Amino acid sequence: MRLDELDTPTLFVDLDALEGNLDRFQSYFTSHGIGLRPHIKTHKTLAIAHMQMARGAIGLTCQKLGEAEVMAAGGLFQDILIPYNVMGSQKLDRLTALASWAKLTLGVDSAYTLRGLSEACSRDGVTVGVLIDVDFSGARTGVTSASEAVELGVLAHRLPGLELRGIMGFPTPPEIRPQLQAVLAAFDAAGLPHPTVSGGSTKSALSAHFLPELTEYRAGEYPVGGAGHLYEGRHTVEQCALRVISTVVSRPTPDRMYLDAGSKTLSASLATFRGGPCAGHIVEYPEARIHGFSEEHGHVDISACDRKPEIGERVQVLPVHPCPCVNEHDELVAVRKGRVQAVWPIHARGKIR
Amino acid sequence: MRLDELDTPTLFVDLDALEGNLDRFQSYFTSHGIGLRPHIKTHKTLAIAHMQMARGAIGLTCQKLGEAEVMAAGGLFQDILIPYNVMGSQKLDRLTALASWAKLTLGVDSAYTLRGLSEACSRDGVTVGVLIDVDFSGARTGVTSASEAVELGVLAHRLPGLELRGIMGFPTPPEIRPQLQAVLAAFDAAGLPHPTVSGGSTKSALSAHFLPELTEYRAGEYPVGGAGHLYEGRHTVEQCALRVISTVVSRPTPDRMYLDAGSKTLSASLATFRGGPCAGHIVEYPEARIHGFSEEHGHVDISACDRKPEIGERVQVLPVHPCPCVNEHDELVAVRKGRVQAVWPIHARGKIR
Repeated sequence: MRLDELDTPTLFVDLDALEGNLDRFQSYFTSHGIGLRPHIKTHKTLAIAHMQMARGAIGLTCQKLGEAEVMAAGGLFQDILIPYNVMGSQKLDRLTALASWAKLTLGVDSAYTLRGLSEACSRDGVTVGVLIDVDFSGARTGVTSASEAVELGVLAHRLPGLELRGIMGFPTPPEIRPQLQAVLAAFDAAGLPHPTVSGGSTKSALSAHFLPELTEYRAGEYPVGGAGHLYEGRHTVEQCALRVISTVVSRPTPDRMYLDAGSKTLSASLATFRGGPCAGHIVEYPEARIHGFSEEHGHVDISACDRKPEIGERVQVLPVHPCPCVNEHDELVAVRKGRVQAVWPIHARGKIR
Repeated sequence: MRLDELDTPTLFVDLDALEGNLDRFQSYFTSHGIGLRPHIKTHKTLAIAHMQMARGAIGLTCQKLGEAEVMAAGGLFQDILIPYNVMGSQKLDRLTALASWAKLTLGVDSAYTLRGLSEACSRDGVTVGVLIDVDFSGARTGVTSASEAVELGVLAHRLPGLELRGIMGFPTPPEIRPQLQAVLAAFDAAGLPHPTVSGGSTKSALSAHFLPELTEYRAGEYPVGGAGHLYEGRHTVEQCALRVISTVVSRPTPDRMYLDAGSKTLSASLATFRGGPCAGHIVEYPEARIHGFSEEHGHVDISACDRKPEIGERVQVLPVHPCPCVNEHDELVAVRKGRVQAVWPIHARGKIR
């Protein structure tokens, strides 16, 4: 079956572009001696995770325990980082069960989380690794000072069932280097181990070598790009592998049109690009602006287009934010040179616990 | 099982509040002689759709054909409005198949759509109703003048396989009455029937009687409310039936905390309320502001809270926009007085085609 025979809207990934991105980023990290630990939250798909591991990734990142369970059950249990404060008896039971056959490391930013993990792991006779989550941006989870990081590191180092493996941060652009060095110096002064120093974010991925302290890097969106990566020059339009084919279903005035892909297809994620709100990029009409949506319609301003799209015409849309977009879908169609090569279940979709 | 035994995050609906809303809105529409045609896109759930029909709804609204297929297969095939331009051979085949055993009416805003419907219906020996979609707000699908509405009405009235049933609009607050009257007068002057005049939106639902021309009204969110309906006075906090139980998983500073419910749980929908971005409302901490999210974290400013939530504490969150929130989930837990009474599959989730 060909791409142009699929009904719309449909989410697909272009295999040539995907493989090119996987190779490009893996080569970069290999050449700089930094481990690449892909974040599966972007694609949530076993096939792509296996492709990443086969190219040399050192392990995976899964944001929730349920995602880790899916990846482990799909054969990828060798080394999983969950950069999340896992807590509560039900999740801790699941965590120790998974830790009995998969290698797990947890990101932690509180004594509350550490004590819960330790109690469950020592009770059930397993060990999990711990990275202290340090926030360099002031806007995410993570302790905000080197002294707090050391305080938690000391506790993690001491508690049974835990193995302190170092620190993590997100995002980690080059300018955080002084803060990162301060935390590592404080760890050294306290005699705390940090074999792992984990950075993250696709935005600054290809600048990771400016932080030689990093031993590994977490990136999610690099395999597929998206409208933001296109506008900010990290991916060419050809490298943006994740796309939605959509049909123009309404064009009530010469300057407004409506696609059959709204928030249920692209997600309700809006960003600001090119001076205004942006819900995606139309490949065939780069001057068009998807400035908003309702559940089932993308709302498009086509006033800047010389040639106006016609009702019934099919277009390809790059989502502005691939991760929540993928989470709306049960299947991802894999396409090469316009032909459907596979329909992959999005195994980790909706794993919120 | 009790609500407080469920792991977090979990989406649930409070049955007492739900039933109260269903009764309140149905009573209003019944007392004013306007048919209520609930939009199932908010809950996407057969049980709630059946509750709506059992209370006197005249039929259902489904935004996409796939939603209509789900509702019809669940026994609700008596009268379905799809206020959407359905086009393309694959969807038209499905449409005529469904129309052979379900009563369907379609919203249409172009000759392209009308001709496609007519061709498929006459070929397959079925008839579907048509409402001409008229846009009174200038920001949605729908023709923007009475003359265009008449032009399409004439075509719909003439083409085989179609039955012109009137007009529809969205949203239809009281102030659009002069435009509505102009379209109806133009229909009358052209000798076009309009047994159905369909308005919509929960926001102005209880003002529908100011438009006595309306024969029916489409509303989606009224059964469950949400943060916006709370802030704008349409639902009390007790009447907001759709909620997410969530756990505080991080509190890196006294003024910032992170919930285990992010865009994968609440959706990526942000609105502006109380002078800033809003992703939801925390019932136990009304002064807290969920001002943003990442996939798995709700980002909360708790600077205005006298008592600060503790790590590990559970809270109830009202989503800012229930429809995309529900679309993230496969199941809806039904709760009464703190006890789980049912776990409903969200049958129409993800039906984007």
